[in-house]
Amino acid sequence: MARFLKNKEASMGKSPGELIFIGEQKIDESRIQILDYDQEHLDEKFLNDIKDGIPYKDTATVTWLNVYGLHDTELLKAIGQGFGLHSLVLEDISNTGQRPKMEDYDDYIYFVLKMMRYDEDEGRIHSEQLSMILGETFLITFQEQPADVFEPVRKRIRNQKGRIRKVGIDYLAYALLDTIVDNYNFIIERMGEQIEDIEDEILDNPTKDVLTRINNYKREMNYLRKTIRPAKEFILQLSRLESDLIQEQTIPFLKDLLDLVSQAVEVIDTYREMLSDHLNIYNTGIGNKLNEIMKVLTIFSAIFIPLTFIAGIYGTNFEYLPELHFRYSYFVFWGVMLAVALVMVRFFKRRNWL
Amino acid sequence: MARFLKNKEASMGKSPGELIFIGEQKIDESRIQILDYDQEHLDEKFLNDIKDGIPYKDTATVTWLNVYGLHDTELLKAIGQGFGLHSLVLEDISNTGQRPKMEDYDDYIYFVLKMMRYDEDEGRIHSEQLSMILGETFLITFQEQPADVFEPVRKRIRNQKGRIRKVGIDYLAYALLDTIVDNYNFIIERMGEQIEDIEDEILDNPTKDVLTRINNYKREMNYLRKTIRPAKEFILQLSRLESDLIQEQTIPFLKDLLDLVSQAVEVIDTYREMLSDHLNIYNTGIGNKLNEIMKVLTIFSAIFIPLTFIAGIYGTNFEYLPELHFRYSYFVFWGVMLAVALVMVRFFKRRNWL
Amino acid sequence: MARFLKNKEASMGKSPGELIFIGEQKIDESRIQILDYDQEHLDEKFLNDIKDGIPYKDTATVTWLNVYGLHDTELLKAIGQGFGLHSLVLEDISNTGQRPKMEDYDDYIYFVLKMMRYDEDEGRIHSEQLSMILGETFLITFQEQPADVFEPVRKRIRNQKGRIRKVGIDYLAYALLDTIVDNYNFIIERMGEQIEDIEDEILDNPTKDVLTRINNYKREMNYLRKTIRPAKEFILQLSRLESDLIQEQTIPFLKDLLDLVSQAVEVIDTYREMLSDHLNIYNTGIGNKLNEIMKVLTIFSAIFIPLTFIAGIYGTNFEYLPELHFRYSYFVFWGVMLAVALVMVRFFKRRNWL
Amino acid sequence: MARFLKNKEASMGKSPGELIFIGEQKIDESRIQILDYDQEHLDEKFLNDIKDGIPYKDTATVTWLNVYGLHDTELLKAIGQGFGLHSLVLEDISNTGQRPKMEDYDDYIYFVLKMMRYDEDEGRIHSEQLSMILGETFLITFQEQPADVFEPVRKRIRNQKGRIRKVGIDYLAYALLDTIVDNYNFIIERMGEQIEDIEDEILDNPTKDVLTRINNYKREMNYLRKTIRPAKEFILQLSRLESDLIQEQTIPFLKDLLDLVSQAVEVIDTYREMLSDHLNIYNTGIGNKLNEIMKVLTIFSAIFIPLTFIAGIYGTNFEYLPELHFRYSYFVFWGVMLAVALVMVRFFKRRNWL
Amino acid sequence: MARFLKNKEASMGKSPGELIFIGEQKIDESRIQILDYDQEHLDEKFLNDIKDGIPYKDTATVTWLNVYGLHDTELLKAIGQGFGLHSLVLEDISNTGQRPKMEDYDDYIYFVLKMMRYDEDEGRIHSEQLSMILGETFLITFQEQPADVFEPVRKRIRNQKGRIRKVGIDYLAYALLDTIVDNYNFIIERMGEQIEDIEDEILDNPTKDVLTRINNYKREMNYLRKTIRPAKEFILQLSRLESDLIQEQTIPFLKDLLDLVSQAVEVIDTYREMLSDHLNIYNTGIGNKLNEIMKVLTIFSAIFIPLTFIAGIYGTNFEYLPELHFRYSYFVFWGVMLAVALVMVRFFKRRNWL
Repeated sequence: MARFLKNKEASMGKSPGELIFIGEQKIDESRIQILDYDQEHLDEKFLNDIKDGIPYKDTATVTWLNVYGLHDTELLKAIGQGFGLHSLVLEDISNTGQRPKMEDYDDYIYFVLKMMRYDEDEGRIHSEQLSMILGETFLITFQEQPADVFEPVRKRIRNQKGRIRKVGIDYLAYALLDTIVDNYNFIIERMGEQIEDIEDEILDNPTKDVLTRINNYKREMNYLRKTIRPAKEFILQLSRLESDLIQEQTIPFLKDLLDLVSQAVEVIDTYREMLSDHLNIYNTGIGNKLNEIMKVLTIFSAIFIPLTFIAGIYGTNFEYLPELHFRYSYFVFWGVMLAVALVMVRFFKRRNWL
Repeated sequence: MARFLKNKEASMGKSPGELIFIGEQKIDESRIQILDYDQEHLDEKFLNDIKDGIPYKDTATVTWLNVYGLHDTELLKAIGQGFGLHSLVLEDISNTGQRPKMEDYDDYIYFVLKMMRYDEDEGRIHSEQLSMILGETFLITFQEQPADVFEPVRKRIRNQKGRIRKVGIDYLAYALLDTIVDNYNFIIERMGEQIEDIEDEILDNPTKDVLTRINNYKREMNYLRKTIRPAKEFILQLSRLESDLIQEQTIPFLKDLLDLVSQAVEVIDTYREMLSDHLNIYNTGIGNKLNEIMKVLTIFSAIFIPLTFIAGIYGTNFEYLPELHFRYSYFVFWGVMLAVALVMVRFFKRRNWL
Repeated sequence: MARFLKNKEASMGKSPGELIFIGEQKIDESRIQILDYDQEHLDEKFLNDIKDGIPYKDTATVTWLNVYGLHDTELLKAIGQGFGLHSLVLEDISNTGQRPKMEDYDDYIYFVLKMMRYDEDEGRIHSEQLSMILGETFLITFQEQPADVFEPVRKRIRNQKGRIRKVGIDYLAYALLDTIVDNYNFIIERMGEQIEDIEDEILDNPTKDVLTRINNYKREMNYLRKTIRPAKEFILQLSRLESDLIQEQTIPFLKDLLDLVSQAVEVIDTYREMLSDHLNIYNTGIGNKLNEIMKVLTIFSAIFIPLTFIAGIYGTNFEYLPELHFRYSYFVFWGVMLAVALVMVRFFKRRNWL
Repeated sequence: MARFLKNKEASMGKSPGELIFIGEQKIDESRIQILDYDQEHLDEKFLNDIKDGIPYKDTATVTWLNVYGLHDTELLKAIGQGFGLHSLVLEDISNTGQRPKMEDYDDYIYFVLKMMRYDEDEGRIHSEQLSMILGETFLITFQEQPADVFEPVRKRIRNQKGRIRKVGIDYLAYALLDTIVDNYNFIIERMGEQIEDIEDEILDNPTKDVLTRINNYKREMNYLRKTIRPAKEFILQLSRLESDLIQEQTIPFLKDLLDLVSQAVEVIDTYREMLSDHLNIYNTGIGNKLNEIMKVLTIFSAIFIPLTFIAGIYGTNFEYLPELHFRYSYFVFWGVMLAVALVMVRFFKRRNWL
Repeated sequence: MARFLKNKEASMGKSPGELIFIGEQKIDESRIQILDYDQEHLDEKFLNDIKDGIPYKDTATVTWLNVYGLHDTELLKAIGQGFGLHSLVLEDISNTGQRPKMEDYDDYIYFVLKMMRYDEDEGRIHSEQLSMILGETFLITFQEQPADVFEPVRKRIRNQKGRIRKVGIDYLAYALLDTIVDNYNFIIERMGEQIEDIEDEILDNPTKDVLTRINNYKREMNYLRKTIRPAKEFILQLSRLESDLIQEQTIPFLKDLLDLVSQAVEVIDTYREMLSDHLNIYNTGIGNKLNEIMKVLTIFSAIFIPLTFIAGIYGTNFEYLPELHFRYSYFVFWGVMLAVALVMVRFFKRRNWL
């Protein structure tokens, strides 16, 4: 399946705003987790029915609604109605091939981006779509399947003294984004180490396996770049957004996040260039190796072909071949051959081939 | 025929605004289809005479006039007069080599873009020009030939309950553009799958056929990019256009469309880079293969050339060649040759050539 | 002679504004053609003396003064004085190495660009400089030599009913620019066809001639780009210029022209990339061919060198060489050689070399 | 360890603003040096306790607090509280993987950049993070370990007559930045000399060592670029900053600094291109060398293989082989072989292979 | 010595504004030439003492002070005091490694750029730094050594009727810049001719010398670009500068100059690309040549190796080898060999190798 564009066939001809799940269904049933808290209280549970979640919309407490599984379009519709979401937003949530972006619908901000996981054995990055709806008192996140990546944030929420309990819902959104971007950087760092390590191998021993790996890293780096660059764009937009939903005091944190994601993009570009350089060096290495091989062949041929020729001459059966009958011919013959061989060796030594 | 510029000779020296059909005539006779509807009524028919279509211009209902075939310049002129179109617009409609663009003539907006079809057998993308005139109450589309691509939109119109029946003419224009951009993405996805699949072949078995295919995809990707990039530009313009013809509520849909077409352009660039990488890897593969071949040659030569030489020595007819007369010479001779062969084999093993 | 910069030596040290003809003189004597017209009248003749042309400056009719030959600096000075031109403008007109540009001197607009001709036999583009002075009632064009390229425009002027007779002098300037840009596109299309045709040859039979042609097209495409890009810039400036000399109704035509020239620049870039791709493919083709050659060599060598060695053994003259005296030795010898040959053939078949 | 991103794992999941040292601890104990001066007085000492340093914040004198060692988070927190720094600033200071940047917190400006050292033996650039807090009357610098690079600035401070004693704290910050940027340029110059020197070697003798060096310089240049480009960005920001902390008279100095760092970035790009060119030339050199080798092989083979064949013919044992019995056969045989050899030599001479 | 950055070591650790000559001293003693003129008078002489020059600052006449030699820091300081120059300006003047730039100090404009000379024998461009101070009534130029390049300007000044005598000091500054830019273009043209001429050689006969020259031109083009691009930037700034020091009527001349220098930058880029293309073609040429060589080798080997093998068979000494005793064996043997040779020749002919 094409990895850079997904299931475009399914979306052809359908009416915009019509809700169709596009993607690979990863869990059987959608689940809804809720964390509702303010500085004093914390309420954490799974909901059986989305209807139980909607009233939280109007409470003053911070409410984080986490939805796992996007294939249940009825559920999405119910959430859409309950929280007053635009039909295009719902459509985007249920299409896992979205390009990371942010949209400001005044009452809420919608953003979508990718969470990534690097499978080192396969050498592949797997990604999952995360949509977020940031309202005045609630944050809804949509994931394809449960993932542990947000666990540290939940822990910080459970800790009553943490900063996250004191500040608003926008800070929670920031904290989640921060976790994801940290994860991007972690993946890049892991791949980067491996890329930097290839260097020595290329120069010393350019095997086919190294080539496969270079190609592999290049493809994954392309994939990372395609995924992270639009994320950077929208974090930039977010940090400049004039919206009541983003408090003044959260801005420095978003700027810090922007630095992190900018660094990610820059480092990806650096690694992409490095891989191109590696490929060039690899090619040069192959050229060098070919020269080595040809030198061996040429040296052997150039030494032995003339000698064989000389031997051939005295293997002829001419009746009148005077040298054959001289007493020391055979020894002279050896001498001549040694001399020829020495001349050739010197010739190659002078050319630095030996 | 040059594919990136068409029939420039025909347009040389002609007066601007003069109506000449430039392109390949694809159907015999031009036809006009009309869909006139509001939330209650729907009228769908083919017109025999364009004069019957012009009165629709002044009704409040939404009127979609679809013209197939652009070679009938008389028809175009009649439409131009009937709907008050600028001579340059008519000229652009009848020239199938237009660059996708948008022009705002206050009373109406003109846009032109390409519809594409991917012929997988040929490995070629075929394109057709689509011009649209978006007026206050009418939308005129001009196609080179009838095509099924708009059928899903017609179906949605026939369904009285669909959103499309409730909103204005600008939404219809959006729906058509959306269909076309979906189709772009579909084509890119189809080619993308094939491009991603090439990867393994290149590393394992870089045949000439793979090279032909890489070259082919590259050309088609160039063609796609050249066609889609200006489309992106004009959709951006459209989404920012301050015009009474575009209603406030259509803007989010246009922005969504812009995301789609931006993704298309980005993915094309990703695939173009991937193809360049593929070509590099292919070249490296060829270099590797050459090294393999030369190793085989060198190993054979380096082992047998010295042996042949030794055999040559004892094939000489010197009268006084003492070794020939020793009892075990022949067996010693074999021993020496085996020793030489073993030394060579070890030499190559140490160099990792075997 | 350097083609991308001309006769810089001649202009060194000279005072700016000093009139020196820089370029290659293409005709013996400068000539002045005049077309003076309004909707009713048309006056077309050659002038013997520029003084006869200056009074037209103050008539309300449209006056097109076409000057052939730029070496007559006296003539240029007379025109400069007669029409009140800045000394820098005159200097630019007489220097055929100008970069296409536009300058607005309030009373008149000066623009300079290149007319091109593609010599298919030589595979070279020849260019000629065209300067234009657009005043309120007059247009002066300066060409290096008479050329037929403007003949269609003259025909349209002679036709009393044409649009060109009804509208102002700025439309005439536009019509001339349009003719030139059409010609650019025509040349690009001609070269483009040839470039697209090369593709098959490269894959099938990468001869040296193909390489020469790729290189040739690349150079010419560079030349085209260098010439047309600044032309695009100034047409953009022109279409946005706020000047009394450009009427409101001419703007859409200039925008249309801008589309044409933008398309030209884009297509040039596409062809340049295509040529780079061609060169890459060509190189790959050479690599493939080398592999083919080396396979042939290796197969022959690897089969016959061992066989020759075996024959060599039985060509030795050892006194005690038992095999020589066996009855069927010779036939066994053939059998062994056939077996060796078959093993080698199988070895190469398995590696897909045969 | 990945060099372009550091210790991302450590920062994953941690709360933003939480203080964790990320990096390699380079000294055992953190130390604090203080320089407090105005035009008359100078006080220079090491502090045992940061509490002794905080009162300087409120004196009118210029106070430069230099902190060595970033692992002591308690110390950082104390400084943070004492000087009223944002928690994000402290976090950035203690994370040595920061991207160079500047942040204006109204009361103070925070900037972070890299100090570099080029280890010529290793061929590697080592970098250390430097954070600076520029307040109204104080400047705090944070280094990973003591370094001599600021010694010249200290000397200028000790000299009572120097400009630095007369002007404000912002000039001191500039002087430190200037020292660092000078050092960048010095490193670039050192590497640049070596890069320019490679050129001749590449053309004359493309050894593997040269390739290793090219690769090495390329990696280091990438590293330099990644480090210096964001520094340029923030110096640009700084020179345009409207802040009370930057005096009018310091602006020209900052602009001068901007020129210096811009030059650094440009020269890095020039060297990067030069290294790419070098690699291309190197590859071409290998190709040339291969041709040389193959010419030698071909000449030897083409001359001696036919000769050996001729000798082979007269080594056959046919009973009826008339030439064998002619009186001068052997000499004719030599003659024929000489003739063949001469023909071959001429053939190669004509092709310019000899 | 690194050519792209100079003597950074000398400037490390020194206080900004401190005057140290950085560069290569080219003449023994600094000299000061003065040209003082208005429309009526002209005074041209060498000054012994800079004090004699300072009063000219306050006269209404145009005063051009030309200083040769930058190593005399005392002189520079005196000029700085006399004409009221900023210490950073003096520092920049005495540092010959400046990046071309312009700075507006209200009372005067400072600009610095490079004068160049192309040494065709060496194939190197030598550059010299020129600093200019444009005040209200004076222009001071600083050169490293006397040069003839300004002689034409001096001649125009000596000619009382020239435009230069009538207009202000800013026109003189323009005239000098114009001379320098003309000189840039002249150098580019000279190198360009040589670059364009290489083309044929590359295709016909890719020798090592051609490679050296391509590399050489590339390096020099890089150098030119690095030097001229910032010059273009500052001429652009100058042409847009709102300063009393630049008169309205000088602006068109500066714009003309901007065109010239823009053309220079564009042509340099064109030549750089052309050189890259040349290198690619060169590489392809080497590949082609290798194929030629290998074909020769393969044809020889493939024809003679089988023949030698056949001869080898009949050189064996088997007792029972029936063919040896047939009457016409030898002639049949020749026939077989001819047949084999013909088959091989046909095989290669079919493959188009012959």
